[in-house]
Amino acid sequence: MSLDPKITAFAQAPNFAAFTTLRPDGHPVTQPMWVDADADHVLINTEKHRRKFRNVASDSRVTVTIWDNKNPYSYVEVRGTVVAVVEGDEARAHIDHLAQKYLGHAYPAGNIQSERVILKIKPLETSEKTD
Amino acid sequence: MSLDPKITAFAQAPNFAAFTTLRPDGHPVTQPMWVDADADHVLINTEKHRRKFRNVASDSRVTVTIWDNKNPYSYVEVRGTVVAVVEGDEARAHIDHLAQKYLGHAYPAGNIQSERVILKIKPLETSEKTD
Repeated sequence: MSLDPKITAFAQAPNFAAFTTLRPDGHPVTQPMWVDADADHVLINTEKHRRKFRNVASDSRVTVTIWDNKNPYSYVEVRGTVVAVVEGDEARAHIDHLAQKYLGHAYPAGNIQSERVILKIKPLETSEKTD
Repeated sequence: MSLDPKITAFAQAPNFAAFTTLRPDGHPVTQPMWVDADADHVLINTEKHRRKFRNVASDSRVTVTIWDNKNPYSYVEVRGTVVAVVEGDEARAHIDHLAQKYLGHAYPAGNIQSERVILKIKPLETSEKTD
């Protein structure tokens, strides 16, 4: 199923996402992240050594909440699961794409500590509004 | 234990928090919220009918991540538990205090659908940096 166009618009604009993963004990971890979307998924780019990557390897359930940088009262919440992990050249190129969007230049290669990966997130419930 | 002064500063400034609770099935829910702090707790003000309040009633584990509105690369993440719920006049007065901080005027009484409550959140781990 294609993404809701509202989610695509929020994810492709230079907004930050609050990205939540679950630790092995079930406690949530929430961090500000760059975000993107393809036709069917919300995309988060991280590195293999990070806790959030290890969290999704043990529990694929995540939530991505994106609010308009200029109006935090306007937001989308995507509860979903990580259905694929993209590695290699595609993930490395994607972090440059994100850096262009957020910083206006390529990603500083020296910042990479392990290996970039793209987490492809499929929404579970796009229709249910929570409050 | 008193709050880390950096958390207090982030929570008392007019920054928004990404507030994460857990649904009964363990899936995280993350939403932008107003936030505050007293000497020992991060404070979230919500209403009794809301999903997030029902979530913390069944699982008190929450995470509050606050980033600087002007610089999202600067943030604090508080993983903790809801250790107390404050109701009544104190919770009603507190939403006016928050509205003054974020909107510059008292909270519109007509927005209240059930009953305001303050969730008092005690950090579990202030020292561990996640990434």
